[in-house]
Formats: sequence, structure tokens, C-alpha cells
Amino acid sequence: MPVQWAGLSPELLLTVDREGGERLCAQLERQLRDAIRSGRLQAGERLPSSRELARILGLSRGLVQDCYAQLQAEGYLVTRVGSATRVADCAQVAPAPTTPPPGGRPRLIADFRYGVPDLASFPVADWLWATREAARTMPTADLDYGDPRGSSALREVVAGYLRRVRGAAADPARTVVCSGYAQGLSLALRALARTGARVVAYEDPGGPATATAAAEAAGLTAVPVPVDEDGVDVRALDATGARAVIVTPAHQWPTGIVLAPARRHALIEWAERRDAYVIEDDYDAEFRYDREPVGALQGLAADRVISVGTVSKSLAPALRLGWLLCPQALTESLTDLKRIADRGSPSLDQLALARLIESGRYDRHLRRMRTTYATRRTALVSALAQHAPAVRLSGLAAGFHAVAHLPSGVEERGVVAEARSRGVGLYGMSACRSSGAESPAQLIMGFGDVTDRAIGEGIAAVADLLG
Amino acid sequence: MPVQWAGLSPELLLTVDREGGERLCAQLERQLRDAIRSGRLQAGERLPSSRELARILGLSRGLVQDCYAQLQAEGYLVTRVGSATRVADCAQVAPAPTTPPPGGRPRLIADFRYGVPDLASFPVADWLWATREAARTMPTADLDYGDPRGSSALREVVAGYLRRVRGAAADPARTVVCSGYAQGLSLALRALARTGARVVAYEDPGGPATATAAAEAAGLTAVPVPVDEDGVDVRALDATGARAVIVTPAHQWPTGIVLAPARRHALIEWAERRDAYVIEDDYDAEFRYDREPVGALQGLAADRVISVGTVSKSLAPALRLGWLLCPQALTESLTDLKRIADRGSPSLDQLALARLIESGRYDRHLRRMRTTYATRRTALVSALAQHAPAVRLSGLAAGFHAVAHLPSGVEERGVVAEARSRGVGLYGMSACRSSGAESPAQLIMGFGDVTDRAIGEGIAAVADLLG
Repeated sequence: MPVQWAGLSPELLLTVDREGGERLCAQLERQLRDAIRSGRLQAGERLPSSRELARILGLSRGLVQDCYAQLQAEGYLVTRVGSATRVADCAQVAPAPTTPPPGGRPRLIADFRYGVPDLASFPVADWLWATREAARTMPTADLDYGDPRGSSALREVVAGYLRRVRGAAADPARTVVCSGYAQGLSLALRALARTGARVVAYEDPGGPATATAAAEAAGLTAVPVPVDEDGVDVRALDATGARAVIVTPAHQWPTGIVLAPARRHALIEWAERRDAYVIEDDYDAEFRYDREPVGALQGLAADRVISVGTVSKSLAPALRLGWLLCPQALTESLTDLKRIADRGSPSLDQLALARLIESGRYDRHLRRMRTTYATRRTALVSALAQHAPAVRLSGLAAGFHAVAHLPSGVEERGVVAEARSRGVGLYGMSACRSSGAESPAQLIMGFGDVTDRAIGEGIAAVADLLG
Repeated sequence: MPVQWAGLSPELLLTVDREGGERLCAQLERQLRDAIRSGRLQAGERLPSSRELARILGLSRGLVQDCYAQLQAEGYLVTRVGSATRVADCAQVAPAPTTPPPGGRPRLIADFRYGVPDLASFPVADWLWATREAARTMPTADLDYGDPRGSSALREVVAGYLRRVRGAAADPARTVVCSGYAQGLSLALRALARTGARVVAYEDPGGPATATAAAEAAGLTAVPVPVDEDGVDVRALDATGARAVIVTPAHQWPTGIVLAPARRHALIEWAERRDAYVIEDDYDAEFRYDREPVGALQGLAADRVISVGTVSKSLAPALRLGWLLCPQALTESLTDLKRIADRGSPSLDQLALARLIESGRYDRHLRRMRTTYATRRTALVSALAQHAPAVRLSGLAAGFHAVAHLPSGVEERGVVAEARSRGVGLYGMSACRSSGAESPAQLIMGFGDVTDRAIGEGIAAVADLLG
């Protein structure tokens, strides 16, 4: 009777390909592992002797012995003196569920989603140039683990840039390079938790989901504070007892207003009185079309403000680069947390960004994008004026989103759903309200990653829904 | 009497450069901000009227008004109706301490530091090629925020690679790209904390500082478990009540032994019985010089093992790329934590690594490095045999470190200090022991980033100290 194994003869379970380039021993090991893992070979099952298997497969006995020894060392097989080699227990794994196909948004006439810059304008050639230059000139030692705060070259360039362009009180020694706003926020909240903070406030409307998830992960409770036409309500903030607040002073997310001068002072006065900190999300201050952007709040009170910046809006989210400007009292803690989180951001990317800024290519890109976004904003204003004059648009001539106020009687959720069925992506304000309330009915109109033409066509297609 | 300001006439405090290219308004704003921040202009101080300042500096009055308006919006100045413009309160910041010069290791004859590959061998040209190819072919949508698990292209390539080379039960859907071991560990511990785990065990000797810091940050307590000649002591592990353990099965850090087959099974049996998880640090399994590396423990029990891999040893730490193979029950949580931590790793770097692996350049680099490290290991063995025959070397022919056992009577700390004064970097085992004990006296000899020649010279220079 021939040798049988899993109900099959070994040559049906195992095949040897002498042409493919993979070593025979590796082939055999891989196939045996797979057979064991998939359950085709069951726990306890006896293997043919190495002599027998070698004969069947036409291999040398030594090769089969090596293979058995390897799988025994890895725990797939067990051998006891005087007994046959058998399949070990606990080597089976549940089959993996098949991967669902990647999401992929359906093709839309126009998608007014927000928070994303014009991806097609990403300066690929400049970025590759900067990467090449950085790689060409980087010292070998920069390939090692580095300062968790990031490359000193980038910290100096970024601090200089923020002093110049954002009026920030930026010091390279207190700058921590991170992977964008999400990490910056996460590190800031953890650092504040270490100081004993328990509650962090966030603007309402704002980004309740992000603030809440990040706060929870840091062991904090997140509470909303209302925003009025001058920005965050500092009196209401004071009443929460929070020891930190997340704000967007230059361009409030999502209402688009600027924090009024008196509120800036009140906020800093609050932070000093409460021994609290302000987390400044300086997300899109590069883009203002009517006048100079208002300088960073951090410039006014560097010891009370953690300012978080990013290239996600100015270049592309996928680069995952940003920075924290740290108050002196928190610099060490934020550096330590960054070290624990990931031992620092990738060096070559950091050096490339430093090159891009130093060379003037970054500013050139921003100038080009200011024109692009200003034009798109005008296209949006015109399209609404033409097709849906009842809709009022608010928000500074800045960034790449605006708020559309729908006439009374128009229902936010219905508009969004019906627009979607017509191939237009619209997004309601309700997602930005801590209460989730759908009234007053408003839409956040992102115009960063949608062309002028699509703006016109998209608004025309849904104008009747907008009242 | 002329206008005075901070005891100076305004033209001494403010200068206007008409040649430099910076807009006049921006110059004036920057200088006023700096003067206020540095305290040269004090809170409450009265500013000249816009008309007066314009006259003094030879600028238009409108320009000065714009500048005052900007600084008022930013909170540096206050204006009240019918009253002069004054410097606001709370605009001053403490001067930043000067940055200490970057550390910089002094030049040594030979530095046997561990954990670092040969940085000079990093395949810069291949990496730039891969980056260029990735940028050339990446869809625009990949510049957006992506799947927090990472690029599907890289997850597929890495999962395939780990199935093939590490015998892992790797599924792209359960692979999360991260920024190396530090982030992988941090995410794993946070995910386990969410399941209710309170205690995580780590190997002793091992990396007590890293384990303790990461555990603390995740809200867990870290406890050491002894390692004997077969690897981690599973009976002692069981007694700790830990719900997780961090291990290095393929090449124990730092002793260099392999986890014995019976221990592999015992470890998995422990995890199943305790509803616990094993965090497998698969840090340098690419490098073994005597035989095939033992397959990943994860391959045996994919639902009980979180396997963490990295390119820090195979390419360079500065790339900050790694991956987690996640048990089904933890995949969602680990994905969520990665999203909160940083919304995913940089896309272009991920796509470049995928290209590097797919093209065979990664394997070619590893083959080259295997030869390099094997040669260095031989150089170390020979140098010790020749110059310090009393020293016993242990650890597999693998990775790029080995353990040197000093003869009795030789004191670890003294050897390290005296070697340093002779220009040789040696590192004691005490840093890897949870107790910090300096006995038995052992050195961890890293040979990743030190040349053959430096190995010989370094050992010769300290041979008399080694007993």
C-alpha cells in the first residue's frame, strides 16, 4: 500500500519546481507550512520518514532532513526520540477573511469635500528634486536614529519660516517635527495629561469626532465650547474647568471666522489664570486671498500655546509632515512622547522639506495655489449667485472651504442625499456640531480638490435643492 | 522734541530695506512684533500716530495703517476709540534658551555600539530610483489621506514577502504599516490596554528601558521575565499574571539564542490559556549566516501573536518604516489607534519600499549585507581569539551583535570606561538587565556599523582590559 498523507499521496500535496529559482528546501518548507496551517495536514498526523519522502519526491535525504529540522525549530513539527515526526498542535490558523475591495469613491460630477488641497497640483518634480538633493548631501549619520524632535536642518528652516510668515515666536530647540496635525494633537494631549489635565475643550462647531477620539486615547475628556461671531466663547470655556482648549484662531474650522483681538487676549489671560494651554491648529493659514493672514496666536504667548502646523494643506496629506511649537515647560515631555511614539519622523522626508522651503520652491508653490484657490472660491461665489441666489455664503476669503447657509425650510440631510444621487458630493454642517444638530441647515463647501468647471456644473446640478 | 519710543527714535528701532525684496509692510510688521516680543517696546507703550510714523520712515500713511491694523488683529496692539494705539499686554515672551550644540559622538577608533546596521551601505541610488518610480506611477488619489493601515500596494508586497521569507501567516488585510518597532510596540500595547490588559512582561535580559517607557505611556505595568538557554521562561511568565509578553523568538535580544521548539509551543499554549498575546519583535531575522532563519512565531499562531517588523536593521533606521501583523481580534483596534496616532505612514515612502521589494533590489541588498556582516562577525571572532582568548563569545551566527563574556574578576563598568578613554566604544550588558546588575560581566558587541579593520584595531587596543 502506498504512503498516504492527508488522504493524498505526498506528491499530490507537495510539488517540486526545479526551474523557478526558489531553492528546493525553501519550496518544501513553504508547502509543508501552508499544508499544516490550512489544516490539510492535521495536528498529530504522522509524516513519512525523511528517507521515504526523499524517494517519493526525488530529492536527497539530507535535504528533507534539513527541511524537517527547520520546521521542527519553528514549531510546526514535533519529533520524539524513537518515534515518527508528527504535525505539532496549535499550528493551525483560522482562514483570513478575504480583503474587501478598496473603498474608492464613485465618480462624481463635483465633490465639494473639505480638508483636502488640490492633489493634482502637488509639485511632484520639485519634491523629487528636493529628495534627491537631500539624499545627495545628507551625512551618513543622518541615516541613524536621530533627535526625536526631528532633523535640526528642518527645525531651523521651519522655525525661520514660521517667524517670517506666521509671526510665530519659533525656536528650533522648541520645535518638534511630527507627522501632521493628528500626531501633533495626540502628542499635545498626552503631554497635557502628564501635567494633570483631565478635560480638554474644543470649538463647537469644530471637529468633534477628531477631538473626542484623540482625547479619549490620551485619557482626557473632551467638552465642546460654543463659537460665536468673534470666535471661541472664552467665558463659556472658563466655566468648563478645562485645562486645555483646541482652537483654530486664524481661520476657525469650519465657520471661517477669525478670532477677534479681544478674544485673543481673553484666551491667553484664561490660560495664564488657569495654568492652562491653548492648542492652536494653524491648519491653512498659508491661504488668504484678501489680506495678510493673521499671525499665529503662538507669537503672542509662546509659553501658553502649543501651535500645530502641517504640510497636509499646503502640499499633500500623504507626506505626513508637520510640526509642534512647544512651550518651554512642555518641550521635554513632548520630545519624550515623540520618542516613545515613533523615535522621530523619517529623515529623508524632513531634509527634502527643508530643501523645498530653503530653495523658494515651497513659496512658489503656495503663490501658485493661492491663485488657484482664489479663482475657485470666486467660481463658487458666482455659481451660487447665479443658480442659487437664496444661499448665503460665509467664511473669510481664505483656505479652501466656505459655509453655505441654506434658506429656512430646506433640510440638510435631504439635500445631501439627493445631491449624492445626482453625482454631487455635498457635506452638512451637522457632522461638525457636537450635538449633531442639523439645524440651522448649512453645508461646508470644500473647493480645494474640485476644478472651476466642476464647481459650476456641480452647483447648477443641485441648485434647485438649495432653495 | 522729537518723537521718542523705547527711548529711541523710531528710525533706530525700525529700518526699511527697499532692496531686499520683502514687502515694506511685512518688514514693518515683523520688526514691530519682534520689538514687542523682545520687550524693547513695553506693554502699554504709546505708538506714534500712523501719520507721524509714515513721515519719519518715509512710507505712505496707508501702509502704516495697514500694518497697525494687522498687528491689532493679531493682538500685539490695542486701539480704543479716541485714543492712541498702544502695545497690548501679554505680548512678551521669555527669551528662548540658546540651543545646545548637537551631541555628536566623538571620533572613535572603533565603536561597537549595537542596534545599528551599516549606514554607509544604505542603497541610496536604489531608494531614489524606487521613490522616483513610485512618484511616477502613483495615482493622484494616493496623495490624499489614505487607509490608516497603509498603502494596499505595500501591505500586499510585505505580506507576500513575510509569507515567503519569514514563514508568516501574513494577510494584507491584517497588516498595518507603521513607523518601525517603536510605533509598532506603542500601538500594540495600547491595543492590549483596550482589551483590559494591565501587565505586560518583557524578556530579561532584553530592553528594559524601552519596554518600561512604552508600557507606561500605554498605561500598563511592565514586568521582567528571565531568559534561560532555551529562551523566555514560560513558567515564570505564567506566574506574573501578565496578559502580554514582548519576545524576540528568532534571535533573542541581546543573548542571541533562538527560542527552543518546546518553548514556542509553551508560549502559545500560555497565550491561549490566559487569553493573552505575544508581541513578537522580529527585528533582524533577515540576517543569519549559518542556516535559514527560524520562521516567525506568528506563523504558528496568527491569532495570538502580534508580529512587529521593521526596515531599521535591513535598510536604515531613518526610513521609519515597519509593519504589524495583527491577530484578527485586534486588527480593527490597531487600525483605529494608528489613525489616531498619525493617520497613516507617508505614502510615497511606502510605495517606494514596495517597489524596492518587488524589483528584487531589497533582496539583493540583503544578500550583500549578509556577506558584509558575516565577514565582520568572523573578524570579531578572530580578533578576540587572537588578542583576548579568555573572552568567550556567544550568540547565533546571526544579526549584527554578539555577547562577549568577560573572565571572572574583570569588571564591566571599568572596562567600558577605560576603553572609551582609549577611543573604543564598548557597551555593557548591565543596561539590558532589568536589575541593572553588572555581573556576570558581559559586553554586547555590535558589529553592524564598524568596519573589519576597525574591529581588529579596536579589539587590539582594549585586549589587555578584557582579561
